[in-house]
Amino acid sequence: MTVRLRDEVVTLAHGAGGKATRALVEGLFVPELANPLLSPLGDSALLEVGGARLALTTDTYVVRPLFFPGGTIGELAVNGTVNDLVVAGARPVALTAGFVIEEGFPVDDLRRIAASIAAAARRAGVVVAAGDTKVVERGNADGLFVNTAGLGVVPATLELGPELVRAGDRVLVSGTLGDHGMAVLVARGDLALDVDLRSDTAPLHELAAALLAVGGVRFMRDPTRGGLATTLNELAAAGEVAVRLDEAALPVRGEVSAACEILGIDPLYVANEGKLVAVVAPEHADAALAALRALPLGSDAAFVGTIEAEPEGLVLLDTALGGSRIVDMLVGDPLPRIC
Amino acid sequence: MTVRLRDEVVTLAHGAGGKATRALVEGLFVPELANPLLSPLGDSALLEVGGARLALTTDTYVVRPLFFPGGTIGELAVNGTVNDLVVAGARPVALTAGFVIEEGFPVDDLRRIAASIAAAARRAGVVVAAGDTKVVERGNADGLFVNTAGLGVVPATLELGPELVRAGDRVLVSGTLGDHGMAVLVARGDLALDVDLRSDTAPLHELAAALLAVGGVRFMRDPTRGGLATTLNELAAAGEVAVRLDEAALPVRGEVSAACEILGIDPLYVANEGKLVAVVAPEHADAALAALRALPLGSDAAFVGTIEAEPEGLVLLDTALGGSRIVDMLVGDPLPRIC
Repeated sequence: MTVRLRDEVVTLAHGAGGKATRALVEGLFVPELANPLLSPLGDSALLEVGGARLALTTDTYVVRPLFFPGGTIGELAVNGTVNDLVVAGARPVALTAGFVIEEGFPVDDLRRIAASIAAAARRAGVVVAAGDTKVVERGNADGLFVNTAGLGVVPATLELGPELVRAGDRVLVSGTLGDHGMAVLVARGDLALDVDLRSDTAPLHELAAALLAVGGVRFMRDPTRGGLATTLNELAAAGEVAVRLDEAALPVRGEVSAACEILGIDPLYVANEGKLVAVVAPEHADAALAALRALPLGSDAAFVGTIEAEPEGLVLLDTALGGSRIVDMLVGDPLPRIC
Repeated sequence: MTVRLRDEVVTLAHGAGGKATRALVEGLFVPELANPLLSPLGDSALLEVGGARLALTTDTYVVRPLFFPGGTIGELAVNGTVNDLVVAGARPVALTAGFVIEEGFPVDDLRRIAASIAAAARRAGVVVAAGDTKVVERGNADGLFVNTAGLGVVPATLELGPELVRAGDRVLVSGTLGDHGMAVLVARGDLALDVDLRSDTAPLHELAAALLAVGGVRFMRDPTRGGLATTLNELAAAGEVAVRLDEAALPVRGEVSAACEILGIDPLYVANEGKLVAVVAPEHADAALAALRALPLGSDAAFVGTIEAEPEGLVLLDTALGGSRIVDMLVGDPLPRIC
C-alpha cells in the first residue's frame, strides 16, 4: 500500500503518529532516503556492525508542559527511546541527548530535567554517552526540546516482526491504556477537569525480558503517539492479518475513561509511554500473561484480542454491546505535543 | 580545572561552543549525568558493544537560514555528525535523523532538505537508519531543527586523544578557516556586504583515512562552533600542553578575511564545517601534509603551529608583526545559529 503526501505545508497532524505522519514518512522521507534499514514501521533499525547485532533509534520530545504528574520531558526522552530499543528485542546500552533551548530558559529547570534524565537512565540501565546543546533566540522555540537516540544489542537468534504474526496468536497489553496522554492534557490546565491523572512513563526492559524468557513472542511495540489503535493498524497492514479486539477486555482506569468521555476522545488513540503490546503464540499466551503480571509494571496486564487471517489489514473491535466495528488509524491530531 | 555555572537563565552564549557552553556542560550536564563515557571534550563517545568498538555522537542543527551558499541544514546535519565520528577515528556507519518542524513549514522545502540529507549520506558512505518527526504549533519553533546522531566503528588498535599530544608535534589544518560561519552570516542578508562566500560543509572521512594511513596521528578534531581557537584551547587544557600558532601560516580566503575585518570578527573563532585539525608526530608531519594536499578537500592544507610543553593550557599566536599574544576560548556568541 503506497501512501501519497498531498499537503503543501506541514500540519500538526503530520506529527501525531497517525495517517498524516505515515503519509509524510512514506511519501517524503522514505523515497528520498531510501535504504533497506529505514523502515517506516519499525521503532528501531537493526544493523550488523563489527560482528555485533545492533538496534539504533531516535525520537525527539516536544511535550508541553515540560513537567507533568508522573514525569518530565527528560524521563519521557529516556524511557521513550529505551522502549523503542526494547520492543525491537534489544538490550539498551547507550543514549545520546541533544537539546534545543530557548534563550531565557531557567537554569534551575534545566538542572531538574538533567537530573530526571540521569535518574531515568539509571533505572533503565543505560548511560547517556554523548550530548549536544543548542540555544535559539527568545520566541524561536518553546522552552526546550530534547532528542534522544539509542543504541542497543539484539540477541543473535531473536526474530520479531509483524510478518511473523499468525492467525490464532493472542494480543496482550502490559497495563492500562491512555494514562500518559490524558495526564499531559489535563496538566496543561486549559480544561476545567479536576481529576487526578498520572503519566505512565516507564522503561519496558524488564517486561520485555520476562516475555522473551517465556518464548513464543512474535511482535512487540510500545503504543505511543496514535495509541493502541494506530499500533495495531500498523501491525495488521504490515503483517497482512486482522486484529480482533475485545472492548470489554481493554484495561482503562476509571479516571482516564471518565476524562476521555467528557472530552470525546477514544482511549484507543491516546498515547501510552510505559506500556507494551505483544503478540504471542497461543501455546505460550497464558505463561506470557503470568510473566507480565508478576512484575509491578505489568500488574494490570491483559489479553485484549486475537490475530485472525481475515479481513487482511483491518482492526476490528467487538463492542461491549455485542456489535463489531472497524478501528481505523488515528486521523488528525486531537492531542498535539503529548510526547 | 572546574568550571562553575553561575547563570540563572540560558543565554545564546551557552549554545556558542565557547566558555559559556563549557560552563553549562561541565557545571550542569556532566555532574548530573556523570558516567565515564560522557566527556565534555570528546566529539564522540567510545564504547565496546558485543565485541565491537563503537563511536556514538549527536548534534542538533538550528542554522538560519536553512539554505545557504554551499549547503543546507540537511547537509550540515549529515556532515557535522559524520565528522564527529571521523575525528574520533571511526568509520561512520549509520545516522539517525530527528526533525522538529513548525506548523506551516512548506513541504517542498522539507523535500529539498530530505534530498540534501540523502545526497550527503551517500557521499559520506552512511545510511540514515532511523528517523522521527515532531510538529509544533506555529510560532513555537523557527521553521525546522534537525538532530542527527551517528554510529561508527573504531579500528581495534587506534588510539587518539589530547593526552597523547607531545611537545614538538605539529598542528595541521586541512584547509581555509572561517568559510562556513561567514557564508551563513552573509546569507542572512542583514549585513550590507556584497561578497561571494560559500560554506565549506563536507565530510572529512577521506581526509582522516589518508592521515591515519600515514601514521603518527595523535589527535583530530573538526573546528566547528567556537572555531580553531576554541578547539585548540580545549586541546591545550586537556592535553596539558601549549599550542603555538603562526599567524602568517593560517589559511584564510581573501573574501573571508575581508568580511571578518569589516565585521570585527577574528576568523580563528569562526565555525568551519569541512575542516580537520590534526596533531601529528614530527617525523610523520611532512607525509601527513602531503597526504592531505593530495585530496581535493585538502588542497589548502597547511602547518599552522606546534605543540610546546609550556605554558600549559594556553594557546599562543605569533603575529605577523613579530609579537605574540594569548588566544583565549570563545567568550559570548558573535555568530548565533551558525550550525
